[in-house]
Amino acid sequence: MPFPSKSGLKITQIDVKDVRFPTSLGGHGSDALHTDPNYSCAYVTTTTEGGRQGFGLTFTCGRGTEIIVLTIRSMKKFVVGRNAADIFADFAGFWRQITNDSQMRWLGPEKGVVHLAVAAILNSLWDLWARLENKPLWRLLVDLTPEELVSTIDFRYITDVITKDEAVQLLKSKLPRKEERVKELAAKGYPAYTTQVGWMGYSDELVKELCAKYLGLGFKHFKVKVGLNLKDDLRRCTAVRKYIGEDKTLMVDANQAWSVGEAVEWMKKLAHLKPLWIEEPTSPDDVLGHAAISKALKPYGIGVATGEMCANRVMFKQFLQSGGMQYCQIDSARIGSVNEILSVYLMAEKLKVKVCPHAGGVGLCEMVQHLQLWDYASVSATMEGRLIEYVDQQHEHFYDPCVVENARYMAPKLPGYSTQMFPETLQRFSYPKGTEWQRMFKDGTFPEPDEAELVNV
Amino acid sequence: MPFPSKSGLKITQIDVKDVRFPTSLGGHGSDALHTDPNYSCAYVTTTTEGGRQGFGLTFTCGRGTEIIVLTIRSMKKFVVGRNAADIFADFAGFWRQITNDSQMRWLGPEKGVVHLAVAAILNSLWDLWARLENKPLWRLLVDLTPEELVSTIDFRYITDVITKDEAVQLLKSKLPRKEERVKELAAKGYPAYTTQVGWMGYSDELVKELCAKYLGLGFKHFKVKVGLNLKDDLRRCTAVRKYIGEDKTLMVDANQAWSVGEAVEWMKKLAHLKPLWIEEPTSPDDVLGHAAISKALKPYGIGVATGEMCANRVMFKQFLQSGGMQYCQIDSARIGSVNEILSVYLMAEKLKVKVCPHAGGVGLCEMVQHLQLWDYASVSATMEGRLIEYVDQQHEHFYDPCVVENARYMAPKLPGYSTQMFPETLQRFSYPKGTEWQRMFKDGTFPEPDEAELVNV
Repeated sequence: MPFPSKSGLKITQIDVKDVRFPTSLGGHGSDALHTDPNYSCAYVTTTTEGGRQGFGLTFTCGRGTEIIVLTIRSMKKFVVGRNAADIFADFAGFWRQITNDSQMRWLGPEKGVVHLAVAAILNSLWDLWARLENKPLWRLLVDLTPEELVSTIDFRYITDVITKDEAVQLLKSKLPRKEERVKELAAKGYPAYTTQVGWMGYSDELVKELCAKYLGLGFKHFKVKVGLNLKDDLRRCTAVRKYIGEDKTLMVDANQAWSVGEAVEWMKKLAHLKPLWIEEPTSPDDVLGHAAISKALKPYGIGVATGEMCANRVMFKQFLQSGGMQYCQIDSARIGSVNEILSVYLMAEKLKVKVCPHAGGVGLCEMVQHLQLWDYASVSATMEGRLIEYVDQQHEHFYDPCVVENARYMAPKLPGYSTQMFPETLQRFSYPKGTEWQRMFKDGTFPEPDEAELVNV
Repeated sequence: MPFPSKSGLKITQIDVKDVRFPTSLGGHGSDALHTDPNYSCAYVTTTTEGGRQGFGLTFTCGRGTEIIVLTIRSMKKFVVGRNAADIFADFAGFWRQITNDSQMRWLGPEKGVVHLAVAAILNSLWDLWARLENKPLWRLLVDLTPEELVSTIDFRYITDVITKDEAVQLLKSKLPRKEERVKELAAKGYPAYTTQVGWMGYSDELVKELCAKYLGLGFKHFKVKVGLNLKDDLRRCTAVRKYIGEDKTLMVDANQAWSVGEAVEWMKKLAHLKPLWIEEPTSPDDVLGHAAISKALKPYGIGVATGEMCANRVMFKQFLQSGGMQYCQIDSARIGSVNEILSVYLMAEKLKVKVCPHAGGVGLCEMVQHLQLWDYASVSATMEGRLIEYVDQQHEHFYDPCVVENARYMAPKLPGYSTQMFPETLQRFSYPKGTEWQRMFKDGTFPEPDEAELVNV
């Protein structure tokens, strides 16, 4: 597949919006460390001379989204005026330029606010590319030749695990029967698990009701938040295990609540409930700590899952090398967009670690399904032990929402990365000028924005 | 020592300025990845009801400083209205609150832009505390009891290396002869090394001239930037080795230029010049990579130094645990201020790794000397194999600049953390409204600021 021709693809505008949903009002998304998130995003629209558009976002939890929005505005200078076709033809080079500007890289490097901003911008470019090809993103990825695909990846700092040549060979080795797998995906989709039954802020009654609901919808895997109070965790996990039965799978998620020793002791006390994994037991930066926890919990049959806050491919590399993660939870909006995520999938395949993507929030389910479908068609070629997280929130704001049927993500069909939001959503939930926010400031549901939150208005 | 009384210490204002120096014009500070830095800082002034003030900063490289400034503005809400005495009395609790706000922590956690902002704010609070006690910061630290000192540290995620109780015991074990060491510091200061001879952008002639100058000033340790071009590195390192002689010490610094294998191969080719350490050979996130490089270079007598871009105490913990750093280069403005840096010193002492602080930039020499003096008096009780980096730039902007005589930092005597800048500096170099910047925009030396850089004006 040739890269797009340059005609009409000079990028003339990057627009960015601070979009926030008042999810803290319902306790949705609450966990051990995030007690009152307002699920939000920085939402980017990239427009070319010829009027073509791409949409991208990075997920946030409310306060501070104004900082990401400003960072995207500060990074416009690296994108506006470039031709999108030139970017796609040397995507790795462009990636390195925007992530490693000589002056700005001090603010990361390749982590936190600056990397979240890069993710939003590049997600809009990948959406644009897929729209230009008139394909959903997963098909664009599947249809790239191995050489074209790896041309989008910066291999600096990961060659001790996989080189560009090895990546090409790996992809080539999976070409036979690729089209069969594509057909299977188009027909049957990809298995999902639900996190909807066990948010920290949910009442017992709601948990029971939700277990029944999601069992009815065909789910076999259920995740529960833990880590604030052992007695409470035992009560809720015991209840969920009772409601779902012994033949279903329970996972638990501590959202970084513990130190290393504490994680091991706490999980021993939940081990009789047979959780498949403990997710984010400790600091997302602690590779060696996760390796120690993995080793200590192996005799109990409990694996360690992490990745949603893993800063970049170098951190993923180490988690994969060290035995610190048995389930690799890539996130579609934290690390440097598809370019960097592809490299994590390739390292995971090389080191034989299962990828079970993180999703939920705003748009994460919509995006990450594309990546996991590509993985099945082109990389791992198996679904064994692999699942995509599913959270049933915020989908109504997207033109092309993910569709989960009988606990499986159905393969997206529309062109793009499923990232475009409805204009009405932007008009209602843009922060702080959206109509919903203005209403909630007026009636005292939320305090007025502070002066820092007004700089992007 | 009691904590200060609350009278007049309610914090009424946090003011923040974007201050940039046009250092790229002279090639000062240029290295393999930072080819044209404009040394800059986000500069915080904290004011209390009674008119007491503290000054703090975080160092940056130019573009993007506006993002840190906005982040500090967004974090004001966690500080203004609090009583500084209450903060000092539960400094660890305050630290956890500001670094782990339920919504904002998604932007890090504890890394990058948000952590740089925390560093600037808390540096101003430590400066305020030392001024209230009428002591230079290092004396405040030395005079705190072991229990008071550890009360400022959040031990979450590091208890597998050191617990609060172990830290108290360690500090208690060093109390005998502490006052002798304090007197020695006051009389003779602390040894320094120079980075002034080997910036990437310097000409051969300038390098020769600078070697002569710094030898004349009594320096015995010289650092050179490497990593862009092996032939050029060989030429410059050979020249510096010749100028300084075999009895002096050469260090080299790659500023993250290499992948793991490349670092080992490149350094083997410089090994005959007997560098003491290779600094930042690869990604600052690659603990396991640094451990591999350390192991491979040990037979050549070359150690590995890193830390200036190490994101937080959890990353330092792993570098110290894994054998990935033989020289621990804490930075006074990247991780979460003195509170977090103290924990790194304590871990380094426990694991017997030498701390050789990173300095230079803007205000880093001024600040970090205080920490290293405390280390000698209260923690390691030795200077063996330890040095503070010294770069002779930007000191003229500070009321209480560091004083280096005969290649030793002289102990600061004025109250505070040596962080206060002259009003004239702020008036000239505030970006973009300062008089120097207005002049340089007008004469075309630098382009006008873009719209994102104007949001804090």
